[in-house]
Amino acid sequence: MYRTHNCGELRLEHASQEVTLAGWVQKTRELGGMVFVDLRDRYGITQLVFNNDADADLCDRAKKLGREFVIQVKGTVEERKAKNDKMATGNVELIASELNILNASKTPPFTIEDESDGGEDVRMKYRYLDLRRPIVQQNIMLRHKIAQEVRSYLNGMDFLEVETPVLIRSTPEGARDFVVPSRMNPGQFYALPQSPQTFKQLLMVAGYDRYYQIVRCFRDEDLRADRQPEFTQIDCEMTFVEQEDVLNTFEGLMKHIMKYVHNIEIEDVPRMTYADAMRLYGSDKPDIRFGMTFVELNDVAQNKGFKVFDDAELVVGICAEGCASYTRKQLDALTDFVKRPQIGAKGLVYVKCNEDGSFKSSVDKFFDQDALKAWVEKMNAKPGDLMLVISGEVEKARKQLNELRLEMGNQLGLRSKDDYKFLWVLDFPLLEWAEEEERWVARHHPFTSPKAEDFDKMDTAPGEVRANAYDLVLNGTELGGGSVRIHDRGLQERVFQLLGMSEEESVEKFGFLMGAFEFGAPPHAGLAFGFDRMCALLGGADAIRDFIAFPKNNSGRDVMIDTPSRIDQQQYEELYIRSVEKVDA
Amino acid sequence: MYRTHNCGELRLEHASQEVTLAGWVQKTRELGGMVFVDLRDRYGITQLVFNNDADADLCDRAKKLGREFVIQVKGTVEERKAKNDKMATGNVELIASELNILNASKTPPFTIEDESDGGEDVRMKYRYLDLRRPIVQQNIMLRHKIAQEVRSYLNGMDFLEVETPVLIRSTPEGARDFVVPSRMNPGQFYALPQSPQTFKQLLMVAGYDRYYQIVRCFRDEDLRADRQPEFTQIDCEMTFVEQEDVLNTFEGLMKHIMKYVHNIEIEDVPRMTYADAMRLYGSDKPDIRFGMTFVELNDVAQNKGFKVFDDAELVVGICAEGCASYTRKQLDALTDFVKRPQIGAKGLVYVKCNEDGSFKSSVDKFFDQDALKAWVEKMNAKPGDLMLVISGEVEKARKQLNELRLEMGNQLGLRSKDDYKFLWVLDFPLLEWAEEEERWVARHHPFTSPKAEDFDKMDTAPGEVRANAYDLVLNGTELGGGSVRIHDRGLQERVFQLLGMSEEESVEKFGFLMGAFEFGAPPHAGLAFGFDRMCALLGGADAIRDFIAFPKNNSGRDVMIDTPSRIDQQQYEELYIRSVEKVDA
Repeated sequence: MYRTHNCGELRLEHASQEVTLAGWVQKTRELGGMVFVDLRDRYGITQLVFNNDADADLCDRAKKLGREFVIQVKGTVEERKAKNDKMATGNVELIASELNILNASKTPPFTIEDESDGGEDVRMKYRYLDLRRPIVQQNIMLRHKIAQEVRSYLNGMDFLEVETPVLIRSTPEGARDFVVPSRMNPGQFYALPQSPQTFKQLLMVAGYDRYYQIVRCFRDEDLRADRQPEFTQIDCEMTFVEQEDVLNTFEGLMKHIMKYVHNIEIEDVPRMTYADAMRLYGSDKPDIRFGMTFVELNDVAQNKGFKVFDDAELVVGICAEGCASYTRKQLDALTDFVKRPQIGAKGLVYVKCNEDGSFKSSVDKFFDQDALKAWVEKMNAKPGDLMLVISGEVEKARKQLNELRLEMGNQLGLRSKDDYKFLWVLDFPLLEWAEEEERWVARHHPFTSPKAEDFDKMDTAPGEVRANAYDLVLNGTELGGGSVRIHDRGLQERVFQLLGMSEEESVEKFGFLMGAFEFGAPPHAGLAFGFDRMCALLGGADAIRDFIAFPKNNSGRDVMIDTPSRIDQQQYEELYIRSVEKVDA
Repeated sequence: MYRTHNCGELRLEHASQEVTLAGWVQKTRELGGMVFVDLRDRYGITQLVFNNDADADLCDRAKKLGREFVIQVKGTVEERKAKNDKMATGNVELIASELNILNASKTPPFTIEDESDGGEDVRMKYRYLDLRRPIVQQNIMLRHKIAQEVRSYLNGMDFLEVETPVLIRSTPEGARDFVVPSRMNPGQFYALPQSPQTFKQLLMVAGYDRYYQIVRCFRDEDLRADRQPEFTQIDCEMTFVEQEDVLNTFEGLMKHIMKYVHNIEIEDVPRMTYADAMRLYGSDKPDIRFGMTFVELNDVAQNKGFKVFDDAELVVGICAEGCASYTRKQLDALTDFVKRPQIGAKGLVYVKCNEDGSFKSSVDKFFDQDALKAWVEKMNAKPGDLMLVISGEVEKARKQLNELRLEMGNQLGLRSKDDYKFLWVLDFPLLEWAEEEERWVARHHPFTSPKAEDFDKMDTAPGEVRANAYDLVLNGTELGGGSVRIHDRGLQERVFQLLGMSEEESVEKFGFLMGAFEFGAPPHAGLAFGFDRMCALLGGADAIRDFIAFPKNNSGRDVMIDTPSRIDQQQYEELYIRSVEKVDA
């Protein structure tokens, strides 16, 4: 071992001990015949002292140490005169007696500090240096800690960790598969799993009762910001359970994680139907750190001569407390915000509730004080509040107002990262209509069971069939979701039919699963969490990339190892494939 | 929840309680107006009793239950009259009052029992049924348990679990890579990792200090028996350590696993150099559960007129205790054994040490009693022992005698699966000569450091350079191996040169790693265990396939999901690739 202690370990109790440390030179500074070196490793920083009076040669060598040199230092621990209570080791310093340079370093292309001077591109190219920054190390350590706590909880609940294959069958349904040509089976391919869904269901059929896996999944999608072609899921499945059991089990998991990772006891997680979430928040993943819920105003806002409202399917508003003082400029900015192409509202109506009890609105021409009073009563607005109203088609208006509500939450400081508000959203629709393909697609996935009470709507009104499906939402972001699965071949066939799959196609793709259902498949249900996302949210960050050791960029490239890349002619030949030119249409 | 208890849980203390169980019908039998059902789940088996006198209808329904039906049963726990002490629940039975068939089952194609009547092929096709067999469930549960204990130990030693990417760069060196065409980068490919080697080294460069991962790896090899195209490694790396630290750390891991998985305290693991292992056992992974070490006989066996020995580089033998009584037939069988093409010996010489002190050999023509006595003395043979001698080129003779030694160990019952003998093999050669390619290849991998004391041989006698490389062997099987790594760019370049890699090629393939070495790379070392193999060995089995939930067959196929398989034309187009015909040469 090159050291007796690590760089975060020494305390006053070690004073006068002779120890050896090894680590990286964070910085050096000279002061009155002394050289001070901050020596860094994963565990912390320890101050080294080289004294010119004691050993001039040694001190000279210390002066020449560059940033990020790797050194080994022997010395004696001493109490510091000027203590630094911001550092765990700040009460002591190491008076060096020996210095051994283990490896030199070129000057790094950016500073190895929480606030680096390096841009994203250069940091990704030198990811091994970026990963040295303490803030990134904390992220990766947080990820480690969460993973261990997830396993600790699930192991305690009799879950078994079972590995499922990575080389599986391509059954594109929704996202694209990555595929892998098979050398031993020319013209045939494996696919990388988008999730272990069918395998975990087969494990339930096989009697494994409770399964989990922290598992890599793959999706060949055009990458939007902060999507990765490979990502990690906490994947779980349970047998002989109903929805209620799944919710309780994984609510327990989140309580465990919050307690053991953040030392926060969270309360029971509230529940909301999908229908209510859409009605009250215009979103299937409401941020319930703050209220400002939607109020529908059709009955008080329509038929007053304002054509925009009269022609609208929905007139819906929120009440921003204490925002009556918003200036013209602020209100214009909000209007611009909702009119941005990404949001797409035609306009924004406001009503200020003045402190004197009067109202000032952007639609005074159509609504007198009494008419506005009716709005105020519906919205429970108080003097000093600002009502913001959107209208249009139901879905669009809700989506637009959802964006505005979140923006107001930001502006009013109602979305603190240290405030963790979990929410179960239940009773999702089974299907949604895919405009382009002109067919129903599974909202969750084709293995989700419809609610028994909605069976009779499957033929008559498929869009109204609700599923035994649930999402866990944290602070407006979906952490995970799942469903009670179908375990009956007949019902599974019917759902495949609804999705427009021919019998031949469903047997070709999922015959093994439907076959398994005929040999004593038990009732089962499960869910999966996005692990990268969970780490980012619990780390108080937005970008999952900061919580992945070696992420890919938005073109799916790893710029550090410069891949994807060309392969040898021999590889092509062995795989019986050929690349063809890309022809731009 | 469909149950109040599981099928392995009920004991006498539950007597007279009303409980609900759910599970699979293992078997039913009728006896004197009663129906007895063995109900099975992962946790055990509970006997259900349906009493015709109490409820004839219920009893009739129970009679109709088929094997593997999934049922839910409510009833009262009662003490059994005829207790079964082979079952954990054998003191009680459940007197059923309600029966609910959750799912029927077709008759399974083989019996769901430890000794199944199903052949390998049908069991693999219906793997979800094969996985129901208790013996297979125990294997998968053992795997789970080992994984948790590995993490528990390594977490306690400050190792961080860090995930490395699966979509990486193809750098074929040794085995073939599986590759993945990139849709977004036409003509370019990702590769699946054969191991996370370079990434874990970069994590050390990045200061993560101690890393581990239980990680899937991929190798596109022609599958020999019991090789899988995807397999799992326990992958570890440490910073600021020397070989000794790595050996101690992972010897500790094995002690921990043996203790917490098998409740066996193992002794300190002996160590042996590669040179000694080859000399004494003819193998770099000696099975040291038994002795029978090699004795070299050149000085006593050559120059006595026996041309076979005289022409041989090596004459080497083992002494099989108490085997002088082997019959002619047995001795012929041993000769046939070593002459099999897989082993390839030309013949086998034996010497029986008779109880009367005389010797009987197959080479009496050339060796008189005195000459044979010289062998006996060298081999420390006693009356009643059998000496078996092989000759030829050193490497071949050793390999052949190794096989014979293992066979004798089997015949003499010296290789018990419950006897766990670990061994460190040290000081492997850095390189080995690849006949076909006519160049030196890395014996471990190109990142392994040569021993400093052998540096001067790198140019003059590359084959004699020893590496800081080590293997952990259990009962004659390699459990894992590793090395102290190179962390200096210059030395790494020199090793790449030795391997016949041009500077251009080494920069193209591993430029990122050599670049990283220039920014303060610390000394580091590590190792990796074959997790599938570890599970099989600790499960007392030979086949890793039985310890993988969804293994592939020897053609790399998953016969359950029937993959690899064809992909859609659209997938080809999106990936800018085409399949070309396989032309048989």
